[in-house]
Amino acid sequence: KVHNFSAGPAILPQSAIDASIEAIRNFAGTGLSLLEVSHRGKEFVAVMDEARAIVKELFNVPDGYSILFLQGGASTQFTMIPCNLLNDGETAAYVNTGTWATKAIEEVDRYGKANVLASSEDKNFSYIPKGYSIPADAKYLHITSNNTIYGTQMHSFPQSPIDVVCDMSSDIFSRPVDVSKFALIYAGAQKNMGPAGVTLVIVRDDILGKVTRNMPT
Amino acid sequence: KVHNFSAGPAILPQSAIDASIEAIRNFAGTGLSLLEVSHRGKEFVAVMDEARAIVKELFNVPDGYSILFLQGGASTQFTMIPCNLLNDGETAAYVNTGTWATKAIEEVDRYGKANVLASSEDKNFSYIPKGYSIPADAKYLHITSNNTIYGTQMHSFPQSPIDVVCDMSSDIFSRPVDVSKFALIYAGAQKNMGPAGVTLVIVRDDILGKVTRNMPT
Repeated sequence: KVHNFSAGPAILPQSAIDASIEAIRNFAGTGLSLLEVSHRGKEFVAVMDEARAIVKELFNVPDGYSILFLQGGASTQFTMIPCNLLNDGETAAYVNTGTWATKAIEEVDRYGKANVLASSEDKNFSYIPKGYSIPADAKYLHITSNNTIYGTQMHSFPQSPIDVVCDMSSDIFSRPVDVSKFALIYAGAQKNMGPAGVTLVIVRDDILGKVTRNMPT
Repeated sequence: KVHNFSAGPAILPQSAIDASIEAIRNFAGTGLSLLEVSHRGKEFVAVMDEARAIVKELFNVPDGYSILFLQGGASTQFTMIPCNLLNDGETAAYVNTGTWATKAIEEVDRYGKANVLASSEDKNFSYIPKGYSIPADAKYLHITSNNTIYGTQMHSFPQSPIDVVCDMSSDIFSRPVDVSKFALIYAGAQKNMGPAGVTLVIVRDDILGKVTRNMPT
């Protein structure tokens, strides 16, 4: 088999390839292809339930968190997060460690304000800022755990008095993480988990449903 | 092979199943699985280009339209359409022919106003309203071509002085349609085209980019 050193989808175990082929040939013994059945059918609902259970086990996700598989990529989370967590005029704190953090910051202003606590843009994002203070009255702190373009990674996470939201797209599942230290973790699948098309969101349930915005269903 | 009479994903030709299996085993002769390659790689970009070309040929889509494969389902189009086409305070015209049309109408009010020209709700959506007039100053007319729950279908489309937007989720590709009569056609894949997870949008390019709203990237 050929090698693949790209900074994206990786070589899968042959057992995963074989299981995928069997699901397309004869899904869960239904006599139908995975491509021919309803996403609401009990066989496919069981696939999603198992995927959530595997994430919960692998990442040791505590109770009180929901594990969501969403669409639109991590970029859509850049906007969904302030839309769901910030009321008009409220402020969220951001640390700018690269291209993707910059894009996340740019999406905030239609919902509230982004307070950029620290940035390594002065040296082309070649380091992870340290020593900044986190305002206790900001709604959440947004960080990016790994920045592939610049080769930087947070080897430890900031001690924060406020809820921490982390984009882990490019290093999720590469190391143990104490999920209980985060209010929300998100990651586009196509960097560290699998093929493009789904975004994993792990969210502590109590942070949701608190904004008064009239938002899309 | 078993039969499948559900109102959703249908039995596929064996050639489609076989091609899917081969793409997972050895995609486009790369020696890698479709699940192992970048969605930005030239082999996968070619798949998307071919899919767009097939839609253009099959539905006879004129030049000047873009063929998009989006995420979030037709339900996300319920909100993306007014977000992209209505400035604050502007009005769009809707015809209410069932559950999905009702949901589409409910998403409008955060962007502008929905003027419901006609509804068959009085008789449990058992007929397609006719004889209503379409205001020339509304931004667009939104219709739903087929309503599976109620067994109704528009056998002809309204003559409209304004741009027509149509949810064709449950009857797209079941009959020839003159695409040039529509400004935007959308359809969730899982009803008439294939497995869940993608929404086809065919949009006339000139209607886009005209609102001043600060919208998500």
